[in-house]
Amino acid sequence: MLNSALTWRSVLSLRVSSRLSAQGTRQISQVPLKNLNEDFECEGPCMRTEVPGPKSKALQKQLGEMQSVMSVNFFCDYEKSRGNYLVDVDGNRMLDVYTQIASIPIGYNHPALIKVMMNPQNMSTLVNRSALGMLPPKEFTGKLGEGLLSVAPKGLSRVQTMACGSCSNENAYKSIFIWYRTKQRGHSDPTPEESTTSVINQAPGCPDLSILSFMGGFHGRTLGCLATTHTKAIQKLDVPSFDWPIAPFPRLRYPLEQYERENAQEESRCLEEVEDLITKWALKGKPVAGIVIEPIQAEGGDNHASPEFFRKLRGITKKHGCAFLVDEVQTGGGATGKFWAHEHWGLGDPADIVSFSKKMLTGGFYYKDSFQPDKPMRIFNTWMGDHTRNVLLSEVLRVIKTENLLEEVKQSGKVMLQGLYELQEKYPHLLSKARGLGTFCAIDVKDEDTRNKLIIKARNKGVVLGGCGDRSIRFRPALVFKRHHTHLFLNIFNEALAEFK
Amino acid sequence: MLNSALTWRSVLSLRVSSRLSAQGTRQISQVPLKNLNEDFECEGPCMRTEVPGPKSKALQKQLGEMQSVMSVNFFCDYEKSRGNYLVDVDGNRMLDVYTQIASIPIGYNHPALIKVMMNPQNMSTLVNRSALGMLPPKEFTGKLGEGLLSVAPKGLSRVQTMACGSCSNENAYKSIFIWYRTKQRGHSDPTPEESTTSVINQAPGCPDLSILSFMGGFHGRTLGCLATTHTKAIQKLDVPSFDWPIAPFPRLRYPLEQYERENAQEESRCLEEVEDLITKWALKGKPVAGIVIEPIQAEGGDNHASPEFFRKLRGITKKHGCAFLVDEVQTGGGATGKFWAHEHWGLGDPADIVSFSKKMLTGGFYYKDSFQPDKPMRIFNTWMGDHTRNVLLSEVLRVIKTENLLEEVKQSGKVMLQGLYELQEKYPHLLSKARGLGTFCAIDVKDEDTRNKLIIKARNKGVVLGGCGDRSIRFRPALVFKRHHTHLFLNIFNEALAEFK
Repeated sequence: MLNSALTWRSVLSLRVSSRLSAQGTRQISQVPLKNLNEDFECEGPCMRTEVPGPKSKALQKQLGEMQSVMSVNFFCDYEKSRGNYLVDVDGNRMLDVYTQIASIPIGYNHPALIKVMMNPQNMSTLVNRSALGMLPPKEFTGKLGEGLLSVAPKGLSRVQTMACGSCSNENAYKSIFIWYRTKQRGHSDPTPEESTTSVINQAPGCPDLSILSFMGGFHGRTLGCLATTHTKAIQKLDVPSFDWPIAPFPRLRYPLEQYERENAQEESRCLEEVEDLITKWALKGKPVAGIVIEPIQAEGGDNHASPEFFRKLRGITKKHGCAFLVDEVQTGGGATGKFWAHEHWGLGDPADIVSFSKKMLTGGFYYKDSFQPDKPMRIFNTWMGDHTRNVLLSEVLRVIKTENLLEEVKQSGKVMLQGLYELQEKYPHLLSKARGLGTFCAIDVKDEDTRNKLIIKARNKGVVLGGCGDRSIRFRPALVFKRHHTHLFLNIFNEALAEFK
Repeated sequence: MLNSALTWRSVLSLRVSSRLSAQGTRQISQVPLKNLNEDFECEGPCMRTEVPGPKSKALQKQLGEMQSVMSVNFFCDYEKSRGNYLVDVDGNRMLDVYTQIASIPIGYNHPALIKVMMNPQNMSTLVNRSALGMLPPKEFTGKLGEGLLSVAPKGLSRVQTMACGSCSNENAYKSIFIWYRTKQRGHSDPTPEESTTSVINQAPGCPDLSILSFMGGFHGRTLGCLATTHTKAIQKLDVPSFDWPIAPFPRLRYPLEQYERENAQEESRCLEEVEDLITKWALKGKPVAGIVIEPIQAEGGDNHASPEFFRKLRGITKKHGCAFLVDEVQTGGGATGKFWAHEHWGLGDPADIVSFSKKMLTGGFYYKDSFQPDKPMRIFNTWMGDHTRNVLLSEVLRVIKTENLLEEVKQSGKVMLQGLYELQEKYPHLLSKARGLGTFCAIDVKDEDTRNKLIIKARNKGVVLGGCGDRSIRFRPALVFKRHHTHLFLNIFNEALAEFK
């Protein structure tokens, strides 16, 4: 902690000196200088109002004139936020165990990230956003090498960046369709009929291929992704979709040790259903080109399956010639204690494609050589991601390595899961199914209404949490969430639970 | 120019002073200080090698081990680029008339943009990317007001940001489907059957609705957008699509004055076809919920239609109860001499939705009140855009206003179009159909092969151009492309043309 505080101090004094020397620069800092040196990592949450407080409510009303604000929780003061603490506009300081829907890797205002953007080359990258697929910056190749490719999942040597998670999966699906058809025809050159029909959305140019997904899976909200997302009705209602097969995802019973046999049967049933669906959709004339799955169904309720389930699923994809796409948008980046959650499976044969976003700061997907189209512009768009995010990611990865954060996550994760076990024992009428890998943990609450009330109660006590599924709470701290933060969180969560009779 | 140069100088000296004061900050500047003060706006292009040069080729080879590089033109030194000049890694300085596929609004390294990011609040926005739909920063509301909403198209009071152009259109389509079904059922509350079926991709929850688009239209590359994109086969080949109606876009004959009657007939024919398709698709059980169109079909070949065509099309959407979505991803942001290209139409009744990206730095769409879903999370994703881009956009808009850039665009556009007329008269065997609005101009070349050779020839003489359609060149300079840049470009283009016999 001391080390972190010192580093902050040096960056902040740097800011001050650059402010003093920068005559004529417009400076709008609403943070008094004394606060900049504050190291409140040691102090814990500090609540001044209910959340949302009066300032948040006023801003929400104004924003409501401009766009939908029904999902806004409160407004944040990001400049004042630090590490694991999110500060809101009313001056409340909260321990963040949700981190912008699991997308802040190393906490707020990490000094390393501020520093890296003071490099003029990086500032230039930011203000001159390039069309990366056509006119990449000179430092692009090096940055991909030291960044994304330095943490490439086993067996995947290539990477394509994209702007967000949905775009990543959309383009991963396209890569799968192109690979599948290329394999079918034995080459990538379309017939004249394929060329003509593709422009007008018709077969054979636009073939009836499908992606198999799982009930409870979430892969994004654009139309292709949405056809593989099966979480809440409100996310899909009224939007046209594709007739693609949907397999059941195992519904494991807890505690796992007690239901080994039942759970193994449940997983077998799901795998049989997968094979069944592949056969049925082939007969329908809509062959399954690929299967997409999350290592832990996050939005769908933090549903886990065994490593064996995933290894067998990988076997099924090989047997039927379907691509295997692992969606690590939420699970990737270290929170499970390994950099990629699917590393926990011990796959013999690597996945074909692994998609990512959130904690990786940029969207994108890793892929095997054979999934690279052999003609230009098939996987393409104007920006192809955002190089500034690659620059920041390189720095994030450096911090993860030098601060040994995956090990920290394992330690904090142990404390967290043990604490959750104890809480569910203490409050059996409220909690069940504590589960997790690393700090990527969750627990079920007795019903949706209680879950929602519990989240609000915890927030007013200084802990930000997020729900998932029908009645789960997902815990998604940053990788800098240490053991003492975990204890702090467990204590406050316990206090909130104690208020439910 | 003098003014601009002075401003640059002050920012650059600022950088130098902050570098000197910033002991301990990692600084990797590859630009010698003397170059930083260079104002080469007055000097024109400077070519040292063929493009791509040896350094670009070496980098391309390295990058080729990591991802597809088939569409890479050359590698850029963005730190050295200034204003209308793009500098490559081999030290070639080129006048940029393509600007990262029409996405650089006010030139490279505009000092105002560098300055704005030195504000600590904005730096904090960058390193703490927020989930804008849930936990917006305190300055978000104000920035939307002074930024995006200050240039909202007539009649549209709301705006939703998104990460890129494709996501913008995907979410615009979803807004249209939700609006259409809400209108059909008279309220937004689904039946239990709709809820259940939506999760498994089936009607009535996922209804068979369609978006009508036009041949030659380009609206993005994700699966929903791609079903409305009809430009090149290679963009759509092998990807499953929707059975949605595709209307012909008018193919005008040039010169327009000479073919008034024929062109009016052509436009009428297309409009009749639109109505016909709406009727047919309603009978098919796939009613047209909305129509999407670009004011100028850009990727498809810079195809124009008359303001009357668009006004009548708007009338048809009203008559049939379809939403009217104007895709201004490429045309928006000022290049046509008005901020939005559809302002040239004189619409009595505003569009329902206008989507944008590229020069706006952020994706997103403006919409009427009635297109806002009345339940949360229907139009949602983790990031909902990138607030840093909103911050930069506010500054871009300030520069456009204070430097009166729309007026400059009109002046440069006149010079450009007049110059293109002269060139097509001088080279009738090579060029035809010079056309444009503002600096958003294009010209046809006799065939695809000659077009491609001409682009490369111009590049080696120091002008970056881009193609569109089968055999057109599109001109897409930044808004700071002044009359003298236009003359410079026309002279070099003339030289390149003179080498074709």
